[in-house]
Amino acid sequence: MNLIARRKDEQQETTTVRVGDVIIGGPQVVVIAGPCAIESYEQLLSTALEVQRLGATMLRGGAYKPRTSPYSFRGKGIGGLEMLSQIKALTGLPVVTEVMDARDIERIGEVADMFQIGSRNMQNYTLLTEVGKTKHPVLLKRGLASTLEEWIYAAEYIMAEGNDQVVLCERGIRTFETYTRNTVDITAIPALKELTHLPVFLDPSHGTGKWSLVSPVALAGIAAGADGLMIEVHPQPELALSDGDQSLNFEHFAELMEKVKPVAVVVGRQLSPE
Amino acid sequence: MNLIARRKDEQQETTTVRVGDVIIGGPQVVVIAGPCAIESYEQLLSTALEVQRLGATMLRGGAYKPRTSPYSFRGKGIGGLEMLSQIKALTGLPVVTEVMDARDIERIGEVADMFQIGSRNMQNYTLLTEVGKTKHPVLLKRGLASTLEEWIYAAEYIMAEGNDQVVLCERGIRTFETYTRNTVDITAIPALKELTHLPVFLDPSHGTGKWSLVSPVALAGIAAGADGLMIEVHPQPELALSDGDQSLNFEHFAELMEKVKPVAVVVGRQLSPE
Amino acid sequence: MNLIARRKDEQQETTTVRVGDVIIGGPQVVVIAGPCAIESYEQLLSTALEVQRLGATMLRGGAYKPRTSPYSFRGKGIGGLEMLSQIKALTGLPVVTEVMDARDIERIGEVADMFQIGSRNMQNYTLLTEVGKTKHPVLLKRGLASTLEEWIYAAEYIMAEGNDQVVLCERGIRTFETYTRNTVDITAIPALKELTHLPVFLDPSHGTGKWSLVSPVALAGIAAGADGLMIEVHPQPELALSDGDQSLNFEHFAELMEKVKPVAVVVGRQLSPE
Amino acid sequence: MNLIARRKDEQQETTTVRVGDVIIGGPQVVVIAGPCAIESYEQLLSTALEVQRLGATMLRGGAYKPRTSPYSFRGKGIGGLEMLSQIKALTGLPVVTEVMDARDIERIGEVADMFQIGSRNMQNYTLLTEVGKTKHPVLLKRGLASTLEEWIYAAEYIMAEGNDQVVLCERGIRTFETYTRNTVDITAIPALKELTHLPVFLDPSHGTGKWSLVSPVALAGIAAGADGLMIEVHPQPELALSDGDQSLNFEHFAELMEKVKPVAVVVGRQLSPE
Repeated sequence: MNLIARRKDEQQETTTVRVGDVIIGGPQVVVIAGPCAIESYEQLLSTALEVQRLGATMLRGGAYKPRTSPYSFRGKGIGGLEMLSQIKALTGLPVVTEVMDARDIERIGEVADMFQIGSRNMQNYTLLTEVGKTKHPVLLKRGLASTLEEWIYAAEYIMAEGNDQVVLCERGIRTFETYTRNTVDITAIPALKELTHLPVFLDPSHGTGKWSLVSPVALAGIAAGADGLMIEVHPQPELALSDGDQSLNFEHFAELMEKVKPVAVVVGRQLSPE
Repeated sequence: MNLIARRKDEQQETTTVRVGDVIIGGPQVVVIAGPCAIESYEQLLSTALEVQRLGATMLRGGAYKPRTSPYSFRGKGIGGLEMLSQIKALTGLPVVTEVMDARDIERIGEVADMFQIGSRNMQNYTLLTEVGKTKHPVLLKRGLASTLEEWIYAAEYIMAEGNDQVVLCERGIRTFETYTRNTVDITAIPALKELTHLPVFLDPSHGTGKWSLVSPVALAGIAAGADGLMIEVHPQPELALSDGDQSLNFEHFAELMEKVKPVAVVVGRQLSPE
Repeated sequence: MNLIARRKDEQQETTTVRVGDVIIGGPQVVVIAGPCAIESYEQLLSTALEVQRLGATMLRGGAYKPRTSPYSFRGKGIGGLEMLSQIKALTGLPVVTEVMDARDIERIGEVADMFQIGSRNMQNYTLLTEVGKTKHPVLLKRGLASTLEEWIYAAEYIMAEGNDQVVLCERGIRTFETYTRNTVDITAIPALKELTHLPVFLDPSHGTGKWSLVSPVALAGIAAGADGLMIEVHPQPELALSDGDQSLNFEHFAELMEKVKPVAVVVGRQLSPE
Repeated sequence: MNLIARRKDEQQETTTVRVGDVIIGGPQVVVIAGPCAIESYEQLLSTALEVQRLGATMLRGGAYKPRTSPYSFRGKGIGGLEMLSQIKALTGLPVVTEVMDARDIERIGEVADMFQIGSRNMQNYTLLTEVGKTKHPVLLKRGLASTLEEWIYAAEYIMAEGNDQVVLCERGIRTFETYTRNTVDITAIPALKELTHLPVFLDPSHGTGKWSLVSPVALAGIAAGADGLMIEVHPQPELALSDGDQSLNFEHFAELMEKVKPVAVVVGRQLSPE
């Protein structure tokens, strides 16, 4: 079938997605960093300033968190959005945050420069259709057990509504292996480059579930051709309200950025904007 | 954690869920049958009458269909609901139909006696929360790659809102095997009986994806302790707009019902209401 | 391709496999029972007598055990074979035991009436070829992540050498679900009946990994058309050297046999020999 | 448990494995290349000379091939070994070839500098034990559905016999995704570095199953810390008797080697021997 998302031929250029001043899908390898969940103004601010200093050009932070249990911490909601808004104004970093409910799109869209659709909602067609009606860029994460084909069709739900600003984000699939939280499908990166013209990101934090594995897998992603990385960073991962095990502290994030730089260069990319 | 959905001890009785006059979770093995998608008044009516005659006590039929591609037939929507309403009035069969969008709950709830939450939406927390606020029974299908634990937590999202009328429906999980559409996890049935006090259904149509395998797997489900079956039936499966390969025609459905009866009896159940 | 193992058409009869006086693939549902591993003469004898009394017509017992760790108990080897031989003489029960090494075929063949090829060796082509050169019936377990197609080809390796006495035994596949040891692919039973003319067994002990789930899944297997069951039984499962969690004690095995009988009858089979 | 294969602490050095003059696990990223199966003297010779010229320091080539169907081409056997022997003498390249049958170990060991244990035999304990009794280095591929834990135990079977020259080779695991032949578990590379002190290889040819994806995934492997690559190369992949789809032709292998070089350097390794 003739999908909008499908690459027509080898010559077709990768779509570039603009988020504020940041261009995804161009020569720059874009690093989005920040906490899994926004916990406090101080936590978000200190993280934002530090990841910006170290070369991240976009900020992530969850205000609405999808959690397996209804009794887990589900994010600070509107309060979290307000912090995001203030810290965005302060740092100038464009922000991406998850939208889980179509009814929140307008409110979140006032703050967020990019919507994130999480794994659990990759086939939430209401949500896909509604973000498709906005002009906001969308970071579309892969479903836990979604094939590449199904993922591309999910992007098509957004694009069919007129929004072509879609970035695909590999975040690991579910397999029998239990040592890691998920199994990063590294081959998905070049495979999606063949199958679509959309930029492709990697989230090694959710992909591995263990901070010590984030850095080597992040480098692997860049080497395989990813257009960017999404990294969870927390001032004190051991105190994080969610995903502490897979969050880098500032020191480890600094080390990662040092390593990303030359790998980006040898595959013909760069870490800083042109 | 002390979940509402969790079985407290072996003595705790299975929750019974009432859908119209039908009691799920009691001595009766309940068979829900009908087409995957409502295609026309004639298709739905002829199927309803026939499955009723053969012993089904509830009708299924999709008005809103989740489809991998945005360009596939996505159901007749409101028109489908109207047909469902008329045929329900005519036959007296309680109906179950899928709700995909929280904004449709009220409208669908006027017709449906039971909401179905499909696999793709098992972790659509907006939807779970909103059906939790209604008094309607909910048939909660298992996500494609959801563990039993995650599935129970999804039920908890509904129950935490005050709605305890939840039925869990195994419909196959995604594995490496490609001969069948999904892999029916038959062990989930007794396992859920240990872990929760909720009734458990089996959908061997989606579970197998091949009509010739539906009948033996349906019997297996009853033998394993399922409280009911959800079966796709179509007057002419070869002409169906969706899921034709896995739909039984009337003759094969009749054969299945003949076989279900004695299997139900030997495990201490019965096919007809008391 | 025109495989020997492949069913030619619906009319083709199921191959019957003879193990001593036992006929697998005929009207009788054959129950093979016994301990995972042979631990002592007393353990094996008491189990053999009890399962025989309760209706099992074949005895299982491992002398050579494949274990993930080289430091686990790996079976009593020749000593175990000798016990098997004595107890076979005493009870008259035909015995099945695993062969892991082609060099042991002759020695084991002197005692065993049927060779078992375990999951880990389903694609050990040396072993398949060598048992194919014998006249012994073979119980071929499914590999942990083997498709039906690959499994049939494994049977073909045996049959291509001239041995057509092959029984396929479903024992669960590996999936993401961790509540159970494996995921029983119940649909494999009717699917294999369509694809091949070989008898099909179910091993719910390895399939579930939990004794409390063995019985409902065993019944499901019979309802789905299995030609027999392979059940782990131990006088004191809590003291077993391997697989204690999934072994039935005598009382639970007795209960299972009581339930199997009527289920076999309603699907047109019987538990006792003609 | 205190396994020989287990890394004791972060300080413990990676074991180096010597194959002829080649040192695996040191600063050099070792590239093993060659055809999936040895088809003719000319095919093997031309490939060997070309991959050597381009920087590969070891030759692979299958004489005994594990094939799903008994009727597929199963390798040239002894004839293949003789070709391997001659071309090894001619080029000086150490060779690795698969051993499937413990009875072939001596014969293959006369030619091979390193034994390969394939995925299907990762838990063939006879084979593991017997290669463990030799002094030959062993390339142990991961089973199709083996956890890291089971894989390490398989290595332990070899090491417990006194042979510590074991290299682990990730080659993709089996998942639901069908676009690729297998799913490369890139995280396994750094995870195994934490868990064991053994060198870790990547086989992106089997891992991806598509030649166009081999190169980006190979680079990802190096970036993630792999000690080497195993690459299938064929003079005319479209005519290959096995695995043609995933084999690189000479031109594409040359391009890959050009890219591997700088990636190796930025992660502190080198492609050529010291």
